[in-house]
Amino acid sequence: MTTPTKIIFDTDPGIDDAMALLFIEASPALDLIAVTTIFGNADIETTTRNALYLKDRFGLTAPVYKGTDKPLTRPRNPSPTFVHGVNGLGDVELTGLVPAQPEAKPAHQAIIDLARQYPGEVVLCAVGPLTNLALALQADPEVATLLKSVVIMGGAFGVAGKPGNVTPVAEANIWNDPEAADQVFTAPWNLTAVSLDVTTQVVMSPDYMDALAAGGSDACGFLNAISKPYAAFYGERDGVVGCCVHDAAAVAYVIDPSLFTVRRGSVRVVTEGIALGQTCQKAEGELFGPSAWDDQPIQAATVAVDGARLLTLYAQTMAAKYG
Amino acid sequence: MTTPTKIIFDTDPGIDDAMALLFIEASPALDLIAVTTIFGNADIETTTRNALYLKDRFGLTAPVYKGTDKPLTRPRNPSPTFVHGVNGLGDVELTGLVPAQPEAKPAHQAIIDLARQYPGEVVLCAVGPLTNLALALQADPEVATLLKSVVIMGGAFGVAGKPGNVTPVAEANIWNDPEAADQVFTAPWNLTAVSLDVTTQVVMSPDYMDALAAGGSDACGFLNAISKPYAAFYGERDGVVGCCVHDAAAVAYVIDPSLFTVRRGSVRVVTEGIALGQTCQKAEGELFGPSAWDDQPIQAATVAVDGARLLTLYAQTMAAKYG
Repeated sequence: MTTPTKIIFDTDPGIDDAMALLFIEASPALDLIAVTTIFGNADIETTTRNALYLKDRFGLTAPVYKGTDKPLTRPRNPSPTFVHGVNGLGDVELTGLVPAQPEAKPAHQAIIDLARQYPGEVVLCAVGPLTNLALALQADPEVATLLKSVVIMGGAFGVAGKPGNVTPVAEANIWNDPEAADQVFTAPWNLTAVSLDVTTQVVMSPDYMDALAAGGSDACGFLNAISKPYAAFYGERDGVVGCCVHDAAAVAYVIDPSLFTVRRGSVRVVTEGIALGQTCQKAEGELFGPSAWDDQPIQAATVAVDGARLLTLYAQTMAAKYG
Repeated sequence: MTTPTKIIFDTDPGIDDAMALLFIEASPALDLIAVTTIFGNADIETTTRNALYLKDRFGLTAPVYKGTDKPLTRPRNPSPTFVHGVNGLGDVELTGLVPAQPEAKPAHQAIIDLARQYPGEVVLCAVGPLTNLALALQADPEVATLLKSVVIMGGAFGVAGKPGNVTPVAEANIWNDPEAADQVFTAPWNLTAVSLDVTTQVVMSPDYMDALAAGGSDACGFLNAISKPYAAFYGERDGVVGCCVHDAAAVAYVIDPSLFTVRRGSVRVVTEGIALGQTCQKAEGELFGPSAWDDQPIQAATVAVDGARLLTLYAQTMAAKYG
């Protein structure tokens, strides 16, 4: 059997974050070596509390490192309580909550230290605002070459006429810290953005979630419970019946990139004006005059996904672990 | 027979502008009542000279009004001589050139006066930077309700993953005066943007142009001649064999909108940063928090085109007039 891939999960739980975190834990292809938290779906105290709760309730062994509480240069946007609830997990009661503390080391330092401890071996999967990643780059630029790869859930590239989710052109994770995102996209690591263009095409229906929960496990029962208000929000706003897969899609990319089609090219993030937080890619081979994209690293953005196969991978992985 | 639609053509000839101008002249559905010029494919002296040349050589009766020489607030970008040649018409010799002068009235005032003379009857078709239109709105905001409609060639909405043509996200006409474009998109007229998303899908091949010219007319011979360097540019840069239809597509929309599929929604233009000149549409029905798109007029942007039928319309129209 292949050695599992070491993975750091940078996350702002968050409903779909929880679904992604337990997917990592369930996958025999992955070895979760750290959870790093970030503000985003809720404030940093809440997302860190949630990460610690999920660790305790579902028996994760990976340490939890608390990340930064705000964007690099701008005030934090209000938390989207209308999506993730006030408690960040759909306001489902966190039964058996035991107060716990994260590790003392800050998230960005944990990323650096693990990258140095296992050079070339660690995948950093980041599904919230990219501030911890930018802080790691600032503190130790070599982290970019020490990681095996970076896979983020973020961005909206408009490849299928899909809009953003916070403005017509911006996706929330990027919009929540555009300066950090621009630093992350222009760093010389091997980065793939699993973007809204594909994550909105993969929907976990109420039936799908019920079927997961029918196995009787606490994990899938919990995910089913927190998915209900999330699905209700999307149903009311966008007419989507179920939960867009979002963060779990980034994990799926780490496990099996063949689920996706990517477009390669340099990516810049808009840091001012009405398009704030938009991710703009200059596809390889496109020729223009001098521009902000010149001489920037080539990164990958997802443009298509085999949604059915992704849903099967998720369900089978969860069933094999949790029943 | 239906009365032909009165049309003002705001243009920066320009190779594809010339192809569009003679298309208007040839169409029995259209009555060209004025040509207004604008900088863009070349400076204003050159584009106005070219408009007067085309009028003289091809016997147009519509008067030519000279427009403004620069964007509303920023310096003019360098002319794209690598696309349209130094003379704006592919550096094909302008044989029989007779010096002529435009009308004394400035272009934006001509637009206002014609809109007031024929309220509700005039279509303004603009295929260059939108500065004259913004000046007309500033001088007389009622022009917005006096025109029948406005059809522009401009913008890139990313609906099929197509990039811009001057940056990964910006189309040249909008990028050449983003502030004017934002004023034009947010004015309360009935506006359709025939965008790069569709114009790059319709290509006049060398064979197509040769067939037009085979009729033996001076007009089609001239268009065939000026199309060659234009096709060579696109072939070298983008691998396109032939001329993207661009400006003639806006005219085709005026003649037969059923050639196109449009998406409706408010449109804003990015006026700073790396996405300068990008057109961003909030499609009707998309729900976001408060944004720059709120309470703006709903405009139409093309998202698909029946290219084969457009090419047939153009060829048949030209053949019927010029043989």
